[in-house]
Amino acid sequence: MSLSNDVLMLLLPSAPPAAWISALEAKYPGFRIRFESTQNADRTVRPMTEIPAASWDGVTMLMTYIPPPPGVAPNVRFVQLLSAGSDMWKNNELYLNKDVVFCNASGVQPAQIAEWVIGSLLSAQHKFSRYQAYMKEGYWEHNYEMDLDDCYGSRIGILGYGSIGRQVARLSQALGMEVYAFTHRERSTPESRHDSTWSQPGQGDPTGVIPAKWFHGPDKAAVNEFLAQDLDVLVVCVPLTDATYKLLGREQFEILGRRSAFVSNISRGAVIDQDALAEALENDVIRGAALDVTDPEPLPKDHKLWKTKNLLITPHVSWKSKKYWSRIMQLATQNLDALANGDKLFNEVKR
Amino acid sequence: MSLSNDVLMLLLPSAPPAAWISALEAKYPGFRIRFESTQNADRTVRPMTEIPAASWDGVTMLMTYIPPPPGVAPNVRFVQLLSAGSDMWKNNELYLNKDVVFCNASGVQPAQIAEWVIGSLLSAQHKFSRYQAYMKEGYWEHNYEMDLDDCYGSRIGILGYGSIGRQVARLSQALGMEVYAFTHRERSTPESRHDSTWSQPGQGDPTGVIPAKWFHGPDKAAVNEFLAQDLDVLVVCVPLTDATYKLLGREQFEILGRRSAFVSNISRGAVIDQDALAEALENDVIRGAALDVTDPEPLPKDHKLWKTKNLLITPHVSWKSKKYWSRIMQLATQNLDALANGDKLFNEVKR
Repeated sequence: MSLSNDVLMLLLPSAPPAAWISALEAKYPGFRIRFESTQNADRTVRPMTEIPAASWDGVTMLMTYIPPPPGVAPNVRFVQLLSAGSDMWKNNELYLNKDVVFCNASGVQPAQIAEWVIGSLLSAQHKFSRYQAYMKEGYWEHNYEMDLDDCYGSRIGILGYGSIGRQVARLSQALGMEVYAFTHRERSTPESRHDSTWSQPGQGDPTGVIPAKWFHGPDKAAVNEFLAQDLDVLVVCVPLTDATYKLLGREQFEILGRRSAFVSNISRGAVIDQDALAEALENDVIRGAALDVTDPEPLPKDHKLWKTKNLLITPHVSWKSKKYWSRIMQLATQNLDALANGDKLFNEVKR
Repeated sequence: MSLSNDVLMLLLPSAPPAAWISALEAKYPGFRIRFESTQNADRTVRPMTEIPAASWDGVTMLMTYIPPPPGVAPNVRFVQLLSAGSDMWKNNELYLNKDVVFCNASGVQPAQIAEWVIGSLLSAQHKFSRYQAYMKEGYWEHNYEMDLDDCYGSRIGILGYGSIGRQVARLSQALGMEVYAFTHRERSTPESRHDSTWSQPGQGDPTGVIPAKWFHGPDKAAVNEFLAQDLDVLVVCVPLTDATYKLLGREQFEILGRRSAFVSNISRGAVIDQDALAEALENDVIRGAALDVTDPEPLPKDHKLWKTKNLLITPHVSWKSKKYWSRIMQLATQNLDALANGDKLFNEVKR
């Protein structure tokens, strides 16, 4: 299948590199690429309804984060999402049409999110925030206590072993940690442990060989069994579903408290019962936590979590990277090539 | 050679596990182990001169950080140091006697020091201290800028490729970074790149296969050539010698400024010209730095480095770990076994 009759509409916050557009148009004669910004000059969000009708004319492909207004692009056959999730497309006419191919952007974020997870863990282990506070006073601490601890030989549980969890596993392995993985469905054969998500070279655990042990199950009992494996660290990488809503509550933190685990959440805030988390931290049931996601977001100014001890909160930024767009462009190029050549696409969304 | 006539004196801050002592004494009949604390009950330093003369009687082996008083243990044949360096032994009678075997504790610290290096790098990349400051005000930043950056695809230069540098390399590789190594002497053959330092399993780069490129040389010109390799990060792991005193000055920071590198120092403070570093940070020549060592230590309360921007200072703690003593005990056990069996020792100090 050629791209000679295709028009790709890019809906991005800023213009993609001109060289990327000209290279693709040169590779596929007839293929046209258009760009409309998703933000105004003052960086506020530009409503999609402001895109002139003429711009939508003949569009057959989209690269976008947000769904377009209804009816503007009836001939779309391919959508490259800029996000890993597709929740906000649930009721979209294009998404409901199974003939339209959707690919997500999984694999673009694991590098930075895994860095956030391991970076916040190491910051806590090595007490950087304490030393930053001492710097303000010019205070050089003399302390003969061995009150710092490293990660070598400790055990990390990864709840949700997708592309992000697998890059966390790679870093954990390099640190000398033992990795335990939890997946929703059973992964009993070597093949079932593979992950075909798009990935940058040398990242993640594509064949699933890093975990020393695998756990699985559909319910809290299965998760509780996983949490009871003497975990020193728990990383939450599961999507938010009815089954994962407030999955970690008081009972789960009690289990994690047996080894005073450190808990990291980069999935969705509502996977954790935040009252139970605050209680577990204030009572030293668990030794620390790092949250890039909260419920709600933004977290209200007077929310108790802001002042909870041994906790780092960042405002849903772990996915951010200056390299984000160049990675998206790499993935999109590979998918456009696959469409042109009839090859298998990366990250096709099954629905 | 048996250990049946040996007496090992342990000079440690607190008592070693009784099980460790009894296991060794059971393994080697006649071998006796004694312990004297190096600190008082109130955690102040206990002078070695307070150790009763009877305790020294018959001692043939030492496990210690500080040299013993002159003459107290004339029959010592083996010293297991608790530190990687042996600078403070330079004029010690035992050290000057080449018949006394000295082994250092290299390999006990790479796990925690490499975590400190990578943790402080990731903290800076992902701006954790900015978010910690926002937490105090309950401020959830809305920021559509991609002003964070990850390490994937960037280049780290490791100045001094010993056991610490090699564990930094292992972590860097897992992050998707390209590693360039600098050594004092040339390492042109595969064998010359090996490192036989004692190590925990799964750590470091024992065969020297991680670096994409190796550099070497005895002088500043060689170092400058290394720094000019478009390094995004520089980690300083060289020992302090006449040749490395103030090795990194204004000229070197200018070179590192080409890519606005991040600089990390876990060796000795005097390897860096601190005035030049402060200037490079204040003028945004380099994008950040992390120092676990300063010159002098402690850094005086009114020293300008405390207030220098984009800098983390910690009070020489990167070597600390709750696992430190158990690692020392592992190494010591292996060396005692090697002595008993006439095998090659780990970390023998050449002098």
